[in-house]
Amino acid sequence: MRSLGRRARAAGAALARTTPGARTQALTAMAEALDAARPELLAANQKDLETARLKGLSAAMTDRLTLTCDRIDAIVRALHDVAALPDPVGQEIARWTVPSGLDIARIRTPLGVIGIIYEARPNVTADAAALCLRSGNAALLRAGSESLNSAMAIATALRQGLAASGLPADAVQLVETADRAAVGAMLGGLAGCIDVIVPRGGKGLVARVQAEARVPVIGHLEGICHIYVDAAADPQKAVDLVVNAKMRRTGICGAAETLLVDEAVAETLLPMLAGALSDAGCALRGDGAACALVPAMTPATDADWRTEYLDAILSVRLVAGVAGAMQHIETYSTGHTEAIVTEDSETAERFLAGVDAGIVMHNASTQFADGGEFGMGAEIGIATGRIHARGPVGAEQLTIFKYVVRGTGQTRP
Amino acid sequence: MRSLGRRARAAGAALARTTPGARTQALTAMAEALDAARPELLAANQKDLETARLKGLSAAMTDRLTLTCDRIDAIVRALHDVAALPDPVGQEIARWTVPSGLDIARIRTPLGVIGIIYEARPNVTADAAALCLRSGNAALLRAGSESLNSAMAIATALRQGLAASGLPADAVQLVETADRAAVGAMLGGLAGCIDVIVPRGGKGLVARVQAEARVPVIGHLEGICHIYVDAAADPQKAVDLVVNAKMRRTGICGAAETLLVDEAVAETLLPMLAGALSDAGCALRGDGAACALVPAMTPATDADWRTEYLDAILSVRLVAGVAGAMQHIETYSTGHTEAIVTEDSETAERFLAGVDAGIVMHNASTQFADGGEFGMGAEIGIATGRIHARGPVGAEQLTIFKYVVRGTGQTRP
Repeated sequence: MRSLGRRARAAGAALARTTPGARTQALTAMAEALDAARPELLAANQKDLETARLKGLSAAMTDRLTLTCDRIDAIVRALHDVAALPDPVGQEIARWTVPSGLDIARIRTPLGVIGIIYEARPNVTADAAALCLRSGNAALLRAGSESLNSAMAIATALRQGLAASGLPADAVQLVETADRAAVGAMLGGLAGCIDVIVPRGGKGLVARVQAEARVPVIGHLEGICHIYVDAAADPQKAVDLVVNAKMRRTGICGAAETLLVDEAVAETLLPMLAGALSDAGCALRGDGAACALVPAMTPATDADWRTEYLDAILSVRLVAGVAGAMQHIETYSTGHTEAIVTEDSETAERFLAGVDAGIVMHNASTQFADGGEFGMGAEIGIATGRIHARGPVGAEQLTIFKYVVRGTGQTRP
Repeated sequence: MRSLGRRARAAGAALARTTPGARTQALTAMAEALDAARPELLAANQKDLETARLKGLSAAMTDRLTLTCDRIDAIVRALHDVAALPDPVGQEIARWTVPSGLDIARIRTPLGVIGIIYEARPNVTADAAALCLRSGNAALLRAGSESLNSAMAIATALRQGLAASGLPADAVQLVETADRAAVGAMLGGLAGCIDVIVPRGGKGLVARVQAEARVPVIGHLEGICHIYVDAAADPQKAVDLVVNAKMRRTGICGAAETLLVDEAVAETLLPMLAGALSDAGCALRGDGAACALVPAMTPATDADWRTEYLDAILSVRLVAGVAGAMQHIETYSTGHTEAIVTEDSETAERFLAGVDAGIVMHNASTQFADGGEFGMGAEIGIATGRIHARGPVGAEQLTIFKYVVRGTGQTRP
């Protein structure tokens, strides 16, 4: 593992000196190499699927693991998309002159080496590597044991693409062992050779990474997203937004998990919202006041406010206006995405300014919490920590900066 | 300690909702409260100085610890200066509209709770607290045991100022114990109540913080700054810059520790440089080639390239042009400040682009590595890590951002 780390550090240093054009060429070459490696990819995936069958993996897990020609198309397309993204490295973020006459510029630079620890989906191998390369970083990838063969085949193709374009193949390395000690070594930072860890996967994986990592972690443990329907909400907009926020896809981190309704209008609005949600197949768990208005709801317990269902279940609570909503959110937020539905712009601005989360929204579905929808191209994940980056993490967020100071011989008095 | 953490978190959340104007008023009130507390400050400092005498603290340490009326003036003035700084919180960093019609803004927000662990200088208590407040953060301060009484008196005055201006006094808290276990508790993050740790002090303290912290650390372990004199350097500029970079103040992190000279011009330039440095009182340790040209130098060992002298000592090495200089720097850099002296702008740009450090400089003294000289007002320190911030860390670097998304009822297809 140490030698993987050293090679990643050396490749990262070399990458930092390549041009954006060279990185674009490499990304294109990586896409082409993947495209050409379809037989190897499908064969390797077959091995993983056989093991999955023997282990009795769930249908959902097996589906996530499966590569098909269509899915390989999507992976190749995603690489071309990342190749087409603007390259953040070298961008001038700010520039000014100080009284001593020094010209000071703040310039984007790569972070260095990014360790990505993920689970079943083989596409993460390509997506994460591509986004790291677009931002000038070396990627050290650790796939889940279920997808190790598939990940190895993908990484081999990506490294061929890199080498073909003249960039160091070690800019993308995969830990080729299912040994869980490898994760521990990565979380220790490999003697200073990993600058940041990005976990991608279930709560168990992310919790372990957050608890054990000795290097900074960019990611999120869970997304208990709230949607608050204010007294001044447009009722139809509220119904559409709440149903979409919860039910469009229930398994993603931006899905709403708790509905907060202003008690001032709950009597008329809550039955409408509950009816539409039930019609869409959603089970509801309400506090006492909500259950009194909609007796079909199951009573909620305190645990419900702390639960990310990732399922067709929604907890519902009546609150005393926007202040009550903000108080509930301050207590239970995971810092992911919080939304308000209202036609009162003053109330909306109070919510947007006062709620502390990576993403705050007014009159929009929480399911828009996504790098693509934000116009950032791809994302490596969504961050709910408080330093470096919050919200969708794209190529730009995988960079840092340095100060470039140009003088004419100034000495400091 | 846990309750200190909880109070800091609550104060941070309250602070995040205050206006820049309220924070400016509070900073002014803090300055006035400190000004009014001179008798208490001097009495508390007297206690620390008596203990220092009994413990036989060095003259340098005792001097650092001492408060005088002039030094209190400087602390009060620094608070007024921070009050006059632009407030970063709420600034719109970027704003754009995406095809779905959502209006997306990236807005600066406070980090939350900043833990500052420092040594003897009592002024850090006020400086760090002020910069945290300017950026909307709560400060949890841990002073060195030698300055605990002085720090307590300063913190008491600062808290009086906060309370007088209507802001939560817990926005500034001092750990009122010399027990070293308190540092361990802070490095553990106090159950998620500390977002970032800033160490201020000697290498021993910073190394412990970096090794043990379970939360992100912003700071630097050491500054082995290099100054490279290229073949195309103006000789007189080179002499002035090298002498200033090393000798203006030898004890600061931005002082040069290694001089690299292009072997192509060393025969004429090195004797000039060595003469000027010797005249200024600097001892020189050279590699074989340097010693051959200037026999008065002491031979350097490999340990010299890794040593931050913080003294009137400079290691000297001849290198093969800018490529040789960059190679030496890549091996020995601590990521702080690296400078080139040359009249060839192409060579300069190659160095500025290719050297990976928080600050890279062309024709300027490394001693300019300072938040004040960069026009950032005050700084809480200089960061050499790779995430969140590098170089001088001012109020702006003590913030993060959130995404504010404004819609008109958009649901995600």
